[in-house]
Amino acid sequence: MTSMRMYDIIHKKREGLALSRAEIEYFIHGYTRGEIPDYQVSALLMAIYFRGLNPEETAALTMAMVDSGDRADLSALPGRKVDKHSTGGVGDKTTLVLAPLVAAAGAPVAKMSGRGLGHTGGTVDKLEAIPGFRVDLTTGEFLAQVRRVGVAVVAQTGQLAPADKKLYALRDVTATVDSIPLIASSIMSKKIASGAGAIVLDVKTGSGAFMQKKEDAFALARAMVDIGKLTGRRTVALVTDMDQPLGRTVGNALEVKEAVETLRGNGPRDLESLCLELGAHLLVLGGVAENTGEAVARLWGLLHHGTALAKFKEFISAQGGDPGVADYPDQLPAAAGRSAAAAPRRGYVTGIDAAKVGRAAMLLGAGRERKDSVIDLAVGLVLNKKVGDRVCEGETLAELHYNARDRLEEAAALLREAYHIGDEAPRQRPLVLGTVN
Amino acid sequence: MTSMRMYDIIHKKREGLALSRAEIEYFIHGYTRGEIPDYQVSALLMAIYFRGLNPEETAALTMAMVDSGDRADLSALPGRKVDKHSTGGVGDKTTLVLAPLVAAAGAPVAKMSGRGLGHTGGTVDKLEAIPGFRVDLTTGEFLAQVRRVGVAVVAQTGQLAPADKKLYALRDVTATVDSIPLIASSIMSKKIASGAGAIVLDVKTGSGAFMQKKEDAFALARAMVDIGKLTGRRTVALVTDMDQPLGRTVGNALEVKEAVETLRGNGPRDLESLCLELGAHLLVLGGVAENTGEAVARLWGLLHHGTALAKFKEFISAQGGDPGVADYPDQLPAAAGRSAAAAPRRGYVTGIDAAKVGRAAMLLGAGRERKDSVIDLAVGLVLNKKVGDRVCEGETLAELHYNARDRLEEAAALLREAYHIGDEAPRQRPLVLGTVN
Repeated sequence: MTSMRMYDIIHKKREGLALSRAEIEYFIHGYTRGEIPDYQVSALLMAIYFRGLNPEETAALTMAMVDSGDRADLSALPGRKVDKHSTGGVGDKTTLVLAPLVAAAGAPVAKMSGRGLGHTGGTVDKLEAIPGFRVDLTTGEFLAQVRRVGVAVVAQTGQLAPADKKLYALRDVTATVDSIPLIASSIMSKKIASGAGAIVLDVKTGSGAFMQKKEDAFALARAMVDIGKLTGRRTVALVTDMDQPLGRTVGNALEVKEAVETLRGNGPRDLESLCLELGAHLLVLGGVAENTGEAVARLWGLLHHGTALAKFKEFISAQGGDPGVADYPDQLPAAAGRSAAAAPRRGYVTGIDAAKVGRAAMLLGAGRERKDSVIDLAVGLVLNKKVGDRVCEGETLAELHYNARDRLEEAAALLREAYHIGDEAPRQRPLVLGTVN
Repeated sequence: MTSMRMYDIIHKKREGLALSRAEIEYFIHGYTRGEIPDYQVSALLMAIYFRGLNPEETAALTMAMVDSGDRADLSALPGRKVDKHSTGGVGDKTTLVLAPLVAAAGAPVAKMSGRGLGHTGGTVDKLEAIPGFRVDLTTGEFLAQVRRVGVAVVAQTGQLAPADKKLYALRDVTATVDSIPLIASSIMSKKIASGAGAIVLDVKTGSGAFMQKKEDAFALARAMVDIGKLTGRRTVALVTDMDQPLGRTVGNALEVKEAVETLRGNGPRDLESLCLELGAHLLVLGGVAENTGEAVARLWGLLHHGTALAKFKEFISAQGGDPGVADYPDQLPAAAGRSAAAAPRRGYVTGIDAAKVGRAAMLLGAGRERKDSVIDLAVGLVLNKKVGDRVCEGETLAELHYNARDRLEEAAALLREAYHIGDEAPRQRPLVLGTVN
């Protein structure tokens, strides 16, 4: 294909025509190798923003990005490798619960997780709140642990989908991030490169989600499920509510504590429900359950009869962490100071702006503003009241757990702003808004 | 405006909002100084391709590009400086006729002209076919000649609108050339930077024009006239036919010869008409005629009573050229060989694809394919038959004037393909399709 030219590819997409697989591979591989300049790629990205990509183009883009780098080889593990991905929300600690829970049900969990930017750290940051826990296993240790214990979670290493990384950096400075086929292929390329044979997606929507509008969340879910179909990876997406934070904690160690409570059967209702629903799809796609109804019942039993918690301890222990945190959560890092946000009036909590809560947590130091920011694992927020709860004037809505005072006032103000109090009890919004498969 | 960010400008345009003058200046000046990278500019250009620019944005872009470089200072010349610009067509030698014709009518002509790529050279290339003619006058010589003779035509020098040059190079490789506001601002920035106080535009449409569709040509004409209004330069645009070549010659020396014939009152009807119409608007905008009707009558007289030809000789002579070419056109460079393209059947010429004719002339060496191509001033095409003419089988449709034989067959085949012969006489298409002012 020496006669292919990037100019023609840009022009074709600008005119609204579909690109061939060969054209997409030419563009991705040429860009990764530095043979196609940024300025042609950014023009193409903007044309894609306006013209879109059809499912075949999106799948071809995904696989071209997968082929641009390394691929995790999980073939040494038995069974179908199922992975979960969340598009990200405030207080989302589902992976901490799901990894041991699903392993306890007999589905192997071999998870590579990023750190990333956000309100809090990523899953591996949260796990590092556990004294001694190692996220840097060798490939041999990682695979052996999955075989022996059924679950391992490590920091992502190697060059997974470098084309995606390079493209994302360019999209970030050219206002081409929010294109559904580009987001879908970015997520799916990383999942496929990390060895997933089937994928369960948690697509968040609401004030604290990247996809604030429900229609956009469903469109993204559809695009990712289509990629799964066209690339031979069974994929199911749940579109779930992120209009208020998930659970009652936002912050690394605080979220580990809440995950432990949930594994003990004492978790907040929304977090438990979501883990049961996502876990059920993981079991079905992994081939260890017939249907989601059966799977939910099994998972509920594992949570409420101590099996999931036992698997959690075994998992933590295998990776060098102190399993005692499951029984004595005080061993987790704790912040020096606490400050309460009080209700300005009596009434019902009618909304909690998740984006503001997330921003408040980041101001306390729970998340990375820049790639090189250092996270404070101890700090964060505990939400005593959630949407639908009654409050009296002066009652504590939420607590800030802080170490440094310099941005405390700013964080507290944001937290107060996040809470909306009204006279009428709000209509409860369902947690799972729909399933796409 | 230190808080302005290119990202926000791209995002704003992507969302279909109008950019402010300050934002446009920030982008153009930052790009010219190399402070804004190509990849952000190409993303913005593609967003402009899809979202357009309103008249105020287009005018602001034009003036920002003018301000990016030098401006010709014609203030030493008396009267309003009027300039003409053609969007380019095959066989367009109107400037060769108009410059002395309009000067003969009393309007000063101080013209800077480019060389450029195309089927033939630009106006200055064509003038260089005249033995001794100099296109590189100093500014002092240039202005003195306009004052003394009334007309001077030189090669463009200096850094006129360097932002336009840089943007155009980027558009050329990112499939963002054919955006009407970008084309309009590019043309107008160069005219304004070269000192035009009023502008007459010849916007070509048809098979041999950049704007093949009539609607696009009118839209471009409207965009340029709006820029003129908003920047205080009176501007009139004629939309004219370029479905077949203009006149009967395509090639540098051949076109000079045809221009001389026209100045003698013996030119082809289409070329003479177009020069009269464009010239009339130049006189009116220059303030030396009351209305176009009166102006046409005066110009016709100047062509048919030898005054324009005399001014041509004076002009050529003043720039060091041999005015004898006006009486003895054999002194112009002539090609060594001639080859005829014969009619394959009897009938009427129903169409002559101007793009193919232009391409054939370029293959013979009459124009530049690349910036560094050397032009052969002698070669080109003479069209014996034009649309509407009757032909017999075997009769000569056109002649190829060639020096090298290597691409002669290819050029001849293209020329034969360009001619369409039918049984019925075609409806004559008007030369001027409309006026925008």
